[in-house]
Parts: sequence; structure tokens; C-alpha cells
Amino acid sequence: MDLVKFKGFTFVEGGICAPHGFRAAGIHCGVRKNKEKRDLALIAAEHSCAAAAMYTRNKVKGAPIAVTKKHLENGTARAVIVNSGNANTCNADGVEKANQMCKATAAALKIPEDEVIVASTGVIGEPLPIEPIVKGIPTLARALSTEGSEQAAEAIMTTDTVKKELALSFSLDGVNCTVAGIAKGSGMIHPNMATMLCFLTTDVAIGAVLLKKALTQVVDETFHMVSIDGDTSTNDMVSCMASGDADMKPITSAEDPRYAVFVNALYVLLMNLSRAIAADGEGATKLLECTVTDAPDRATARRVAKSVITSSLFKAAMFGADANWGRILCAIGYTEGSFSIDKVAVTLKSEKGTLPVCQNGSGVPFQETKAKRILEADEIKILISLGGGDCSAIAWGCDLTYDYVKINGDYRT
Amino acid sequence: MDLVKFKGFTFVEGGICAPHGFRAAGIHCGVRKNKEKRDLALIAAEHSCAAAAMYTRNKVKGAPIAVTKKHLENGTARAVIVNSGNANTCNADGVEKANQMCKATAAALKIPEDEVIVASTGVIGEPLPIEPIVKGIPTLARALSTEGSEQAAEAIMTTDTVKKELALSFSLDGVNCTVAGIAKGSGMIHPNMATMLCFLTTDVAIGAVLLKKALTQVVDETFHMVSIDGDTSTNDMVSCMASGDADMKPITSAEDPRYAVFVNALYVLLMNLSRAIAADGEGATKLLECTVTDAPDRATARRVAKSVITSSLFKAAMFGADANWGRILCAIGYTEGSFSIDKVAVTLKSEKGTLPVCQNGSGVPFQETKAKRILEADEIKILISLGGGDCSAIAWGCDLTYDYVKINGDYRT
Repeated sequence: MDLVKFKGFTFVEGGICAPHGFRAAGIHCGVRKNKEKRDLALIAAEHSCAAAAMYTRNKVKGAPIAVTKKHLENGTARAVIVNSGNANTCNADGVEKANQMCKATAAALKIPEDEVIVASTGVIGEPLPIEPIVKGIPTLARALSTEGSEQAAEAIMTTDTVKKELALSFSLDGVNCTVAGIAKGSGMIHPNMATMLCFLTTDVAIGAVLLKKALTQVVDETFHMVSIDGDTSTNDMVSCMASGDADMKPITSAEDPRYAVFVNALYVLLMNLSRAIAADGEGATKLLECTVTDAPDRATARRVAKSVITSSLFKAAMFGADANWGRILCAIGYTEGSFSIDKVAVTLKSEKGTLPVCQNGSGVPFQETKAKRILEADEIKILISLGGGDCSAIAWGCDLTYDYVKINGDYRT
Repeated sequence: MDLVKFKGFTFVEGGICAPHGFRAAGIHCGVRKNKEKRDLALIAAEHSCAAAAMYTRNKVKGAPIAVTKKHLENGTARAVIVNSGNANTCNADGVEKANQMCKATAAALKIPEDEVIVASTGVIGEPLPIEPIVKGIPTLARALSTEGSEQAAEAIMTTDTVKKELALSFSLDGVNCTVAGIAKGSGMIHPNMATMLCFLTTDVAIGAVLLKKALTQVVDETFHMVSIDGDTSTNDMVSCMASGDADMKPITSAEDPRYAVFVNALYVLLMNLSRAIAADGEGATKLLECTVTDAPDRATARRVAKSVITSSLFKAAMFGADANWGRILCAIGYTEGSFSIDKVAVTLKSEKGTLPVCQNGSGVPFQETKAKRILEADEIKILISLGGGDCSAIAWGCDLTYDYVKINGDYRT
């Protein structure tokens, strides 16, 4: 998967420690049996930050979400503690243990408990082993460094095969700023009003309310347009801490032109993280990017794009590099919205070429050998014109493979 | 998969020819390359029947659906012609070819063209080879017999591994009546206001309007509660022809007590066909039956039951006989509806035993070996209590397997 780049926004090294004011670390503490796998991550800011978060809309919510929500009521935070290997969800003692994680973190960093954001990811419904976490936190705090982003990104991975860590540098009125994030997929991914786990840092000076506004707007165009398997997780969370350490006057209004630039930076970052998550979906061999244009309204464009990338039949066809475009039409057709199938056009595209397959709702003859060649690439673009309107949307997904079934047939052992 | 039986309703031999007044046949005509596979089916009534049908709500509709809709405007029909191997959908000449199928059938049976119900199933978006069909229809008409149900059931199969054919006998005020059907799955199955292909016959005397009412009511409780892969097909159709050949006065009102018995008979038949379709879903090794009780309303019960049986993660866990009940809670949690997760209870059950896994939204300890043994059965019941209300619903699905991916990675060749 290649990064999608935009002029004026530059990807830089350093991950979540690239913005001024943050350190990070990741260790193996023992939640997971495999000692090679880090399972506990910490991000710490030098001082209290403006902070905002979004959470899953699943009615079943991980215990850490309840605790984090409470801690972010005042719009500030100074640290993020996360374990992988266990979701701390659907357990009677979940909130108690999430609080213990915050307490241990606060003690190690000498900060108030309500300055801690807490998250967990892994199996649902098994009691969280709290001892290794509480024991590990002091070690983790000692390991904090400005080179720790990679370790933290590794520690939050579950079935991910690639760590997701990006930092983006851009200019606000001549001041160099950075926004960065680490994220994890890669199953139970169909974010609704929130996302999989993603922790963002930035040195932009911006208040919690505006930060939340920007985050909400961008997540809606990025993580909310990703689906691996249609299953909205119980533990989705994206948080952002803004240190304000860039040499700038704070952004205090959405009318400030710098706000729009910050939103754009956030979009470039989260869009690329979204692509990374989709490309590394459980068992995936291909990234699917579906762009819907000429739609009567934005909601319809979004629904059609997501309908196509969530269709099991279409996903399996992409695994087989089979240009079975009838399944795209089928998935378009069962989407709610007011548009005419007779005007729909579909084109399949990859670095290997471009293949129009449908015009005016009917098939266009094509060479199967050419189709196969195009679909054997590891990133496939599906371009859909609904032929009536000027709204558009992009969604990201992946193919459905043997390995998806293998991974999920026996996830707990 | 065992048949679910009810007192007073008896399964009998003969399929769609068991009711008085019907003959059927199925042949290989050449739409499919494999000469061993029948691909053209005909059901013919001795005289004009009251008839009703329901169709897919997908915006992309197979051409045969437009033609059948028109033909059923007068509420009567005398024959059903169906091919497998090609869906005759998303082709510019689709309606023309569907009309040709009706014309050839009408000529062979010496009946009016608008007495013919036409359907197609198979690949979407490839032109229908009409020549073998038109050529085959006279042969097919000559092959009609009261022993032909099995051949017809075979001819409509696509990726089905088992033919679906059932006939049910019951008494209406002492008069022996029969209702019967053939159906096909087994991919692109997530019926919405209609179903996969299913053709029903009965000798009950009932008008088209009441027949449609009964069909609508029962399909809503049966086929609409089935999902194999979440993909609502473009060619779903269920039709019923009522010959009235049973020795009875016609049912002319829904208040007639015999109407309720007929609806029950239709329910027993379609519920068993629904189970058969789910059990034979593409690549499936297990039938999943999810029963939701104690729900605040019927719509919520239905949504929760369907949410669980459509979750890819849960389906894959069932393939692996892994009691990962957190995924059930997750799928319940992302369902729309007003209920409290803290009251949810979940039990897994099969012929091998019963396993409560969740009470009040939290886990109940269980033995993994016992869980494995229960989940290795080929029919798994998932019993969910929402703990508040007295509404319920049942949905049917299947596990997600390597073979599903294999079948759909390269369906067109």
C-alpha cells in the first residue's frame, strides 16, 4: 500500500513522538502468553493537553470507554495507557480494573488519575488479568522516550500484521506543526461514530472543543468509511492530545484559516491510517478503494461506497481476481437511496490498467485476461458513477480470504 | 438438518406435484456447459390457478421479474419456466429474452403468454443464451409428469449441494389439502421483502389476493429471516400457484378459520425450506438458528436475531467450534433498538448439550472441552434473552468457511 500524499503535507519519521511534547513506550507485561509480543503501551505528554475522543456506538461498550469518557469530561489529558490481548469488556469487574490501570499510570507518572485515557483490545468476555499490567506500568513509565512510538504501535496490535504509525508535518501561518497517530485493526472493524483504536498526538495549539469538532468531521470521512468485516467493535476509540507546544498562538475559532489547514492535515493522516487498516484487514491480500461520484447526496454516496466494500461476495471475487461486476451492481442495488440503476457506470482500476465494466446499468464487453491482470494488483480501485448529482464519497475495505476464516475460526487460542 | 414437524401437518412425497393439478420437469438444455447439470425447469398446472408472488427489493432487478410482475397483474398463472446458469440481469436485451422464454413456453403448452411466470438464476451481467432455452422448451413440455418435481428442483440449483423440495399435507375442515415447494439458495442470500427462488404449489382453493396476503405474512417470518452472506440478490422471487383442486369450497375471507390453518401450513413448509437453504449455504458446514426472546418489540427481536447470524466473525467462530460468545454480544450491541445489555443472557445449544455463556451481559464460566463438543454438531442453536419484553423472533444462517471463499473467489468459471 502506498501513502496518498498531498502538497504542503509531509510525512515524517518519529510517529506519535514527532509532535513536540510527547514520549511513548511499549513492553510485554504478560497479558499475552507470547513473550515476543508487546502488550502494553503508554503515551505521555510533558504537560496537560487539550484532549478529545470518540467512542464506539455499539451498545456493548468496553469498560475502559466508560472510564475514559469520565476522565475527558474536562477536556484535558496527559497520558494514554492501552493493553492488547484482552478487551476488558463484558466482565462484571471491568470498570474496577480499568480504574486500576489509570491509578497505576497516574502513580508512575505523578499525574492526577483523571488525566489518563485508558483502552483495551483483544478477546471480549474473559476477565482481564490486572496483575501483570499493574506490575508492568512502572517499567513502562521508565521506558518512555521520544523514540518510543514504534514500540507503542507494536504493543496495541492484535491480528494486525503491520504496525500503523504515521506522522505528518505541515505549516500553520509559517509555523511548523505536526500531527501523528498510531492505530490498530484488523478484525471487528466497521466503525460507527468512532473507530478501531487510534491514538493521535499533535503540537498544534487548539482547545478541546475545537479539537473534538475537527476530529468528528475527519473521522466521519475516514475511519467511518472503513470496513473489514461489517462488525462494529465494542472497544472502538480514537483520541487526540494536543500539546500546543508548536510556537503559535492558539486556534480559538473554526473561522481561523489555520483551523481548516489543521482539519486538512488530520484528513491526510487519518485517510492514510484508514487505508493502512483496510489493507491489513484480517487475512487480506488486497486493499479495495471504492469511490462513488455523481450521487444525488452525500449520504447516498457514502452508503453505496460502503455497501460495495462490505459485500462478502464482491470481496471474495476480488480475492480470486474475478471481475464479477454483477456483484458490484447487486450491492449498489440493495443500498437505500434515490438513484436510477439505469445510469450507473462502473470501472475497475489498478496500477495495471483501467477496465470499464458497466455503462447505463448494463455490461460492457471486456477481455477476461485483461481483467485478471488488473485485479491481480494489491490495490484495486472501484470507480462508480451514479450518473445523477454532484456528491461523492470514498470507502476502504479488503478482500475476503481463506486466511480470514482461518484467523477467526479459532481466535481465542 | 432435521425437519421441524408440527402436529396436524405431515410431510409427504411428490414435491410440487403432490398437490392436485400440477406436473413438472427439468432438463439440461445448454445454458450451462456441464451436461450433467439440469438447467431448465417447468411447472405446469392443469388449468389456470390463482397466483401470487413476491420479488426482491434490490434496485437492480432481473429482467424476468419485470415480466412476471406484468403477467401476474390479473392474479392468475398456469406455468413457471426457470433457467439456472445465468440470471438474465443487467443486460440491455434482458426483458426481450424473458419474453421469448414465456412465448416459447406458452406455445408448447398452448396457453396464453401472460399465464407464464418466468425466472432466471446464475451469473449477473452476462447475456442470456436464449437459443438453447427456446430449443429446449418443447422437449421440456413433453417431459412434464406428476413425478417431475425432483428434476425441476435439480434444474434450479446453482451452488446448492442439496435439492430443496418439500410437500406438506394437512386438513382444512376434514378436506385433505397439500402445499408444496421447491427452492434454491445458496449464495447472495439475504432476502428483503422477497426471497431466493422458491416456487410453491397448492391445491387449496383460495383467491389471489388472500394468497398474496398469506404469502407476505409467512415469508416475513421465514425467508426474510435467512441470511447466508448479507447480499440481497437481484433475482429473488417466490411464487405460489393455487389450483383449487382440493374438494373444498374456496376460502374467501381471512376470517375463515381455514385461512389460519393454511397460513400455518405455509409457515411449516417455508420455515423448513428456510432451514434447508441456510444449512446448505455456500460452503456451510453448520446450520445456525438464533432465537431471540424477551424483546421489547418484534422489530428489535428480528434485528438482533439477524445481526447475530450475519456476523462474519461469529460465523467464522462457529466454523471453528469456538465458543467466542463475545462476538455474539458484539453483534447484539451494534443492533438498533432499545434494550439494556446488562439484562442479556446467551445460551449455546445443540444435540450434544446446553451451555449458558452469558448472564446479565457478563460471562459465565464454562468448560472449553464441553463447549467444543456442543459446537461440533451440525446444527447450533443460539438462544438469546434480551430480558425485557415478550416479543421473539427466529433467524437462520450458516457458518463462514474456507469453501465459501473458494466458491466465491472464482464463481464465473
